[in-house]
Amino acid sequence: MIKVIKFALGLEYDGSYYHGWQSQKSGFLNVQTEVEKAISIVANHNVSIFCAGRTDSKVHSFGQVIHFETTAIRKNFSWIFGINNYLPKNISVKWIKNVPSIFHARYSAVSRSYRYIIYNSKFRSALFNNRVNYISKKLNIKEMYKASQCIIGEYDFTSFRSNYCQSNSPYRKIININIFKLKKFIFIDIEADSFLQYMVRNIIGCLIDIGKMKKNFKWIIYVLKKKNRSFCSSTANPYGLYLLSIKYPNCFKIPVYNF
Amino acid sequence: MIKVIKFALGLEYDGSYYHGWQSQKSGFLNVQTEVEKAISIVANHNVSIFCAGRTDSKVHSFGQVIHFETTAIRKNFSWIFGINNYLPKNISVKWIKNVPSIFHARYSAVSRSYRYIIYNSKFRSALFNNRVNYISKKLNIKEMYKASQCIIGEYDFTSFRSNYCQSNSPYRKIININIFKLKKFIFIDIEADSFLQYMVRNIIGCLIDIGKMKKNFKWIIYVLKKKNRSFCSSTANPYGLYLLSIKYPNCFKIPVYNF
Repeated sequence: MIKVIKFALGLEYDGSYYHGWQSQKSGFLNVQTEVEKAISIVANHNVSIFCAGRTDSKVHSFGQVIHFETTAIRKNFSWIFGINNYLPKNISVKWIKNVPSIFHARYSAVSRSYRYIIYNSKFRSALFNNRVNYISKKLNIKEMYKASQCIIGEYDFTSFRSNYCQSNSPYRKIININIFKLKKFIFIDIEADSFLQYMVRNIIGCLIDIGKMKKNFKWIIYVLKKKNRSFCSSTANPYGLYLLSIKYPNCFKIPVYNF
Repeated sequence: MIKVIKFALGLEYDGSYYHGWQSQKSGFLNVQTEVEKAISIVANHNVSIFCAGRTDSKVHSFGQVIHFETTAIRKNFSWIFGINNYLPKNISVKWIKNVPSIFHARYSAVSRSYRYIIYNSKFRSALFNNRVNYISKKLNIKEMYKASQCIIGEYDFTSFRSNYCQSNSPYRKIININIFKLKKFIFIDIEADSFLQYMVRNIIGCLIDIGKMKKNFKWIIYVLKKKNRSFCSSTANPYGLYLLSIKYPNCFKIPVYNF
């Protein structure tokens, strides 16, 4: 009998080249198709992959996790070098790990962390173009932090979800939000059990308006309570957003991304 | 009488899109042409620019300094926003400053600093593709540092210069070299009065071979003394190289780049 082996695999990508994670009928470039093609060549049979978080168009990843099944026998090292060899330079495999058959990249995940990077400077950056959200007006990060702490917990996040979001439930649990500044860069890290469509970028949109002092930090509670998208700020641009890491139960020993 | 005003200006660019600084007969994309076009539109007359250091093909800049003369009257803020508006997204103006007529971006410069970034990791990075030199073999940075300190001073750097280098003198003075590691990134900062063609990348090539333990750290002295390019390692790739900053006499009060 042919043995089927399941692998988890960590993916980094520069999302600015892609119309998001998911393969599309429209034929637009997407990460999933590129990765499936590369793995299928190395495995020498057609491979389908499943990811932890379907990133939107232009969104980057440091720590996407996928799983796939194969009958091919390769060393871990050969999987990574082989797949990277067939991937475009803006996608790379960082690690691979044999996992038990019950593992599922999406359903086994306990939480997801996203990082949003703002380049807060009078003038735009050439080297960080497509990698940050450039905002020229000086942001008050203390107010942004105070606001961010008000939405930690389990709530109905309808106000922050896209109109096209297909999730059955509007409830999500934000576990942690951290905001810090390094030179001209502002980093906003958000961890939640999972996210509704556009939820991170709609929250960031509100935090930016609060940082610009257009709104008081408590206003975010008002938006949350309204349960209506039209009270929320506009969606922050995708170039500043990075899928940072996925947490799984310890038993799976899934590596955490390390720069 | 129309008054001519001289400006110094700081430039950041992602060199991976360009065949270097200098405008070329071949019509290849270059930074100089893009910047001259943009400034000329804002000034409303043809403008020629002069830079502190002509970066090679694919080399980036955080701190290139140029100067130009104009008869146009604009606020500093309007110059920057105007020029950035007409520049491609991978080039940006960071500051502008009125300078006395004796100032020359190249000839007034006291020293130039370059930064070289190595991504020292088993597997390549997608997000830092075209921004680093990826080296999978673990480098011994202590040995690299010891070697680097042996070439500080004023020497004949013939061994490290390109065969096509047009400089009259092979003598240059290296003022400082610093090497440090941050996660998987190795940073090598080199300051010299000025550099011969390919000098930084040829020095880096030798340091990489020493880091790989192919050569003892003292071997770099042997290469230096040989005054012959053929004893040197191969030129390190340009994607890891950044023109970091230019030092001028204090009287000009030229800003230093700040991330």
